[in-house]
Amino acid sequence: MESKNILIKDATIIADEIIKGSLLIENDKIVEISDKIGISDAEEVILADDKILLPGLVNTHTHLSMTLMRGLADDIPLDSWLNNHIWPVEANLTGEHCYAGALLACAEMIKSGTTCFNDMYFFMDQVAKAADEAGIRGMLSHGMIDFGDEEKRKNEFKETIRIIKKCHNTGDGRIKVAFGPHSPYTCSQELLEGVKKESNKYGVRIHIHVSETQKEVSDIQEIHGKRPFEYLNDINFLGEEVTAAHAVWVSDSEIDIIKEKNVKLSHNPSSNMKLSSGISPVAKLLDKEVCVSLGTDGPASNNNMDLFEEMKISALLQKVNTMDPTVLSAANVYKMATINGANSLGLENEIGSIEVGKKADIVLVNMKIPKLTPFRNPISHLVYSASGGDVDTVLCNGTVLMKNKELLTIDEARVIEIAENASEDLLSKC
Amino acid sequence: MESKNILIKDATIIADEIIKGSLLIENDKIVEISDKIGISDAEEVILADDKILLPGLVNTHTHLSMTLMRGLADDIPLDSWLNNHIWPVEANLTGEHCYAGALLACAEMIKSGTTCFNDMYFFMDQVAKAADEAGIRGMLSHGMIDFGDEEKRKNEFKETIRIIKKCHNTGDGRIKVAFGPHSPYTCSQELLEGVKKESNKYGVRIHIHVSETQKEVSDIQEIHGKRPFEYLNDINFLGEEVTAAHAVWVSDSEIDIIKEKNVKLSHNPSSNMKLSSGISPVAKLLDKEVCVSLGTDGPASNNNMDLFEEMKISALLQKVNTMDPTVLSAANVYKMATINGANSLGLENEIGSIEVGKKADIVLVNMKIPKLTPFRNPISHLVYSASGGDVDTVLCNGTVLMKNKELLTIDEARVIEIAENASEDLLSKC
Repeated sequence: MESKNILIKDATIIADEIIKGSLLIENDKIVEISDKIGISDAEEVILADDKILLPGLVNTHTHLSMTLMRGLADDIPLDSWLNNHIWPVEANLTGEHCYAGALLACAEMIKSGTTCFNDMYFFMDQVAKAADEAGIRGMLSHGMIDFGDEEKRKNEFKETIRIIKKCHNTGDGRIKVAFGPHSPYTCSQELLEGVKKESNKYGVRIHIHVSETQKEVSDIQEIHGKRPFEYLNDINFLGEEVTAAHAVWVSDSEIDIIKEKNVKLSHNPSSNMKLSSGISPVAKLLDKEVCVSLGTDGPASNNNMDLFEEMKISALLQKVNTMDPTVLSAANVYKMATINGANSLGLENEIGSIEVGKKADIVLVNMKIPKLTPFRNPISHLVYSASGGDVDTVLCNGTVLMKNKELLTIDEARVIEIAENASEDLLSKC
Repeated sequence: MESKNILIKDATIIADEIIKGSLLIENDKIVEISDKIGISDAEEVILADDKILLPGLVNTHTHLSMTLMRGLADDIPLDSWLNNHIWPVEANLTGEHCYAGALLACAEMIKSGTTCFNDMYFFMDQVAKAADEAGIRGMLSHGMIDFGDEEKRKNEFKETIRIIKKCHNTGDGRIKVAFGPHSPYTCSQELLEGVKKESNKYGVRIHIHVSETQKEVSDIQEIHGKRPFEYLNDINFLGEEVTAAHAVWVSDSEIDIIKEKNVKLSHNPSSNMKLSSGISPVAKLLDKEVCVSLGTDGPASNNNMDLFEEMKISALLQKVNTMDPTVLSAANVYKMATINGANSLGLENEIGSIEVGKKADIVLVNMKIPKLTPFRNPISHLVYSASGGDVDTVLCNGTVLMKNKELLTIDEARVIEIAENASEDLLSKC
């Protein structure tokens, strides 16, 4: 990589404290934060006097290629949503479709200030290709499902290991791979135990859905005589390398297990609300110091990838659900979307905050706009007033991906065209 | 007014049906909707091939000038929010502050696709001045509070009647005035009865807060021996001219009263969630065919005025609260923000839908953007995927207020500067 310095000048920087100053980037890293950096020190200067500077947001649970199914089926029960709409379409997915959908998702994420995602889906080398082109950071997992079938199980491991070998640590280190056992109700105990062992061998993380619906909990209880996190704990599956999405229906004793095993949780409020899955006890989980981050889930059940929206909805939902307006303060929700996200992917030393030595994953938000006026409390404004559309400029790994709302690494019109064509092709087969 | 024709060409028009076609405006009205209108017929042509055309959204409960208090106090209980933060600031408000805050709110509303609002606050002639300048449509009410004090009561009537005489039906008919008795717990029975009589005399509507919190309900029960809507019904206050904001805590028998008296409700989910007020039984209210519309409430308890966000949050909150994903479908929520809003302000013959003969209050949303791709179901996309920032062009009463995201009737930078100065001045006095 060619050495390059970028100076972001005179921003309102949300670091440990909120400071007015400049930030110098050398290659992929933040090397200086100060109010004394001169313009002459850098090859590229981004003037940011009217901008809030924050770390790129981290989306810890999503299914990028499901952008192609956005708006395909709304306002219907989960069973019908899956059986009659999503699964029949997914049965016809090809690598080309997944590439097109993932590229569209990358455009959407960059435009709304997300620079790192945790994805679980299919044809993950195609997703890696899209993420690499877009210049975004991501952790990819092939969704593994065996329903107890040994042949299927073997194929799922084969595919995951293929993706690890092909994609892990590619794209200047931006692309990582994880194991993606779908859930305790779609994966056999053998599969889950195998994942635990192999993930350890390859030194990669695990991404899984747990306790999304009440039905899942009662099904697991019927089969295993215990609740999902209890079952996963008993088979020694849990650990700090596990990121569990949803965790809507968790008992107090499961919260103790999650905390003890340092499992990372991804909270997905829009999806849980839209599908009527339920409300995760996030206020209680944060009280117990569990690491909870934020995910949008797939765009077919949200229906967008705007983490600013997810921040606001998280805070509002917990406040009304607990009838306590003090829970999930703006500052805590902001942490969920940034440093907790990084922590949930084992990347807390690289991303998730504005610090010297960290990767330059940076978002600039326009603050001279009516909805963020008067300019008073930037974190409150980001959580409660802003939305993804207010993002102006985005960098990932020291590269400018968007400047003045214009995508630089990918051609927005082309991405939209590719996705429209892929969606049309996909649906024509169903 | 000088006669002028505007043609909006080749839009995806959300009328009774969704059609691809053009819309012709003559002066303040829609005069033709068809796919056969030639460009030569109009003096101004807006090309809208990539745009969804919908009616301007209607915000049926807000406090515009509270933009100045945005982000001033978050994540605290309602009592402390009011007593320690909002009321001390409001005690120092002047007409200049209210003008500045209202102008800022108008800019924010136009930018996010709202063309009509229902406001209750103070110095309402200053709010009328701001709305007139911005070219937006609004119904204004002076917030009346007497706490049983006769002198106060007289002054509140005097001020309301002054505003009616000065502002009602001004601004080419865009500005209307209503009576604004604050609530059954801050207004005496004499005040409420006087409002009913005088509003009838002046032929104007009534805008009131009812049953926002559990405490309000138990306080009213303690004083009057009945619940708020029962009490208001017993004093013959209720009628189709009443728009009641919040209606969070309503019993089944109160729902029957609301339906019988054809009271219009304004649902304010973000504010009710943020202040932990509770969850209005909107799904049940709509089932009973009560007219429920949407409001953002004041920007100090939301903290923005984005009705697209409010549509999504309304749907999601009811789905998870009832554990039924079929309630508040995208189509129903879209109606709440448009025709139900018009109906809630007695303006259903003028605005709230795209029909020949109605006022040209029109919003164009960009559809060629990643988050609205693939283009499939426009109403689902508007409710679940879009946000106010996706609005491109806005007309009100046949005048273009924003084109290609640029405000035309007011200078955005100047509005922000005026509001920043007013906010600084206001807080310096507290």
